[in-house]
Amino acid sequence: MPLQDRVLAYSQELIRRASVTPEDAGCQQWLAEKLSGLGFHCQHLRFGEVDNLWARRGTSGPLLAFAGHTDVVPPGDLQCWASPPFAPEVRDGLLFGRGAADMKSSLAAMLVAMEDFISERPAHSGSLAWLITADEEGPATNGTVKVVETLQARGEQIDWCIVGEPSSTTTVGDVIKNGRRGSLGGVLTIAGVQGHVAYPHLARNPIHQVAPALAELAAETWDSGNEFFPATSFQISNIQAGTGATNVIPGSCEVIFNFRFSTAVTAAALQQRTEAILQRHGLDYSLAWHLSGEPFLTPRGALVDAAVTAIRDTTGRDTMLSTAGGTSDGRFIAPTGAQVVELGPVNASIHKIDECTPVAELPVLAEIYLRMLRQLLP
Amino acid sequence: MPLQDRVLAYSQELIRRASVTPEDAGCQQWLAEKLSGLGFHCQHLRFGEVDNLWARRGTSGPLLAFAGHTDVVPPGDLQCWASPPFAPEVRDGLLFGRGAADMKSSLAAMLVAMEDFISERPAHSGSLAWLITADEEGPATNGTVKVVETLQARGEQIDWCIVGEPSSTTTVGDVIKNGRRGSLGGVLTIAGVQGHVAYPHLARNPIHQVAPALAELAAETWDSGNEFFPATSFQISNIQAGTGATNVIPGSCEVIFNFRFSTAVTAAALQQRTEAILQRHGLDYSLAWHLSGEPFLTPRGALVDAAVTAIRDTTGRDTMLSTAGGTSDGRFIAPTGAQVVELGPVNASIHKIDECTPVAELPVLAEIYLRMLRQLLP
Repeated sequence: MPLQDRVLAYSQELIRRASVTPEDAGCQQWLAEKLSGLGFHCQHLRFGEVDNLWARRGTSGPLLAFAGHTDVVPPGDLQCWASPPFAPEVRDGLLFGRGAADMKSSLAAMLVAMEDFISERPAHSGSLAWLITADEEGPATNGTVKVVETLQARGEQIDWCIVGEPSSTTTVGDVIKNGRRGSLGGVLTIAGVQGHVAYPHLARNPIHQVAPALAELAAETWDSGNEFFPATSFQISNIQAGTGATNVIPGSCEVIFNFRFSTAVTAAALQQRTEAILQRHGLDYSLAWHLSGEPFLTPRGALVDAAVTAIRDTTGRDTMLSTAGGTSDGRFIAPTGAQVVELGPVNASIHKIDECTPVAELPVLAEIYLRMLRQLLP
Repeated sequence: MPLQDRVLAYSQELIRRASVTPEDAGCQQWLAEKLSGLGFHCQHLRFGEVDNLWARRGTSGPLLAFAGHTDVVPPGDLQCWASPPFAPEVRDGLLFGRGAADMKSSLAAMLVAMEDFISERPAHSGSLAWLITADEEGPATNGTVKVVETLQARGEQIDWCIVGEPSSTTTVGDVIKNGRRGSLGGVLTIAGVQGHVAYPHLARNPIHQVAPALAELAAETWDSGNEFFPATSFQISNIQAGTGATNVIPGSCEVIFNFRFSTAVTAAALQQRTEAILQRHGLDYSLAWHLSGEPFLTPRGALVDAAVTAIRDTTGRDTMLSTAGGTSDGRFIAPTGAQVVELGPVNASIHKIDECTPVAELPVLAEIYLRMLRQLLP
């Protein structure tokens, strides 16, 4: 079957399996059968309720891994979909279905790319691998992070990792992610003294106390970013005080905030600077920190160069390197020393009703992956 | 029956009637029978579900009215009371029961005072009146405010009004209220633009926008008060933004605040100055104002002097004039041009479990009222 027919057929095979996190719904079994046929050694690694797949072809280095996930986010209100989310359908040149962009078409494109690559070079240098989880869209505690721990425990080192997340903005390959910002969250509780609004001298209003501190935190320049990262961003997502009663000064105020931070600062520095501001305002507070991901960066090098070249050779366009956007499982792989890029479909429709991807871009993505394989494992 | 026995017996009669707002439970009927026996003309004025009583003795001026309420706040958890809230009980020199302090003992003390006064001076100068409602502890929409409207419509003008609210702090008569601050509320909604915390440039965070404005409002000096009023106080009672999700910049933020203000400013000026601050911070906001009461003040004059003298003559102590604390029905009576003082029991236990008042203070309060009657209507 020609490449473009296979990548569409494989995408449809996977979309048909209703693998809402943490369900895999047989996707990994289907993948493993295909990969076994290509000479991969497949290991099903189940942690908690999560299925994971580690498949490897070859024993020597360097090791090039494709990483991704078979799970998808829930479809939401089925009535809102023009066609059922788990019955893939092509209309007006678009493939519709949950996972069409995030990221079952990436899995299909990589599978096709590997089929052709192995057919061309059955005795390629180095090793090929797949690191697939079914909990990327969920809590992400029993997925990639656990597989990486398993690999590290037995000394298996990924050198290059292509994460198939939908990195593209307008057309496939226009943007790749060569890093991600860190994410640091805080839950801040300001203690005041409850009282009646008519007797403010007997109370201490925590909203009044925290307001100037929040104003200062919101106005603070945390860094200026650097060549690869935008400036660190501080955002308050929630604030809550009071019970609805209009004559009561509340006894406490809760503030939830989040930093998306660059490699120009550290989580520790952000914590220290935040607490210094809170203390300068004389607040009686408690603050629980949660570091959900350190920032990572894969600068120019073999992997990024291979992606840039493959995209230019396939599409004729220059790609943009970006570190913007949310977190991905790349945050678990990069700290092992692997070079990591994210390269996948256009992300405009992900997590939405009528998720879709242009059918014509499926073979383009497969071609880009194929060219990267050729360049990295000659 | 001696004065001290009557005031205790009358207090118990009233406490026995479980008149939780808006129920009167027969209190006003009982009062009206007593007052009719003293030569009062009684009118039962029912507005909506609320019973009110207007009773007057005499037709000439000046008109001295006693104002108060027969309703009480709910008892809360009955298990917590040492004795049932509607079964008055004397223990350790204290009369326990819901309404013992707020304000059935005031009603009893005034009734006894009028009995003795009328017995002494059946042809007193001027007129005596009672303005009693059963919704002071509730929404206060069908009570004193409606009775006052009725009186104004027929040209009946109160010259002096003694409100029997529990004004005292430590011993009966130590504090009287010769005015009240105004109360002005606002519900402020700041419009932002919702978005993902990873893409702050696509969102506008209403918490970040409002924080410096709230800091400025909280730090503002609205006035310095004056001889009778403490400085105007601004308090935020509630703030709410966000849905709990830690990665979403909320689309709006709601702030509820309240001014307790002196006669040194006006509600209109507070509104104008608040909005000027919000506008200076460039906020996209909506703001709903609610004026629950204008401030009022009864300066030194016949009524205040009568209270001060009666308290000194009865207790040997100087009373303190105060305008602190919450609102009362005096706010509806003062705007008609009446002089208004609040003078009643110690307020330490009001609205609480095991509400009580010292038995020994009941005749003291009755004596104070009696001396005021003698002085004002010679």
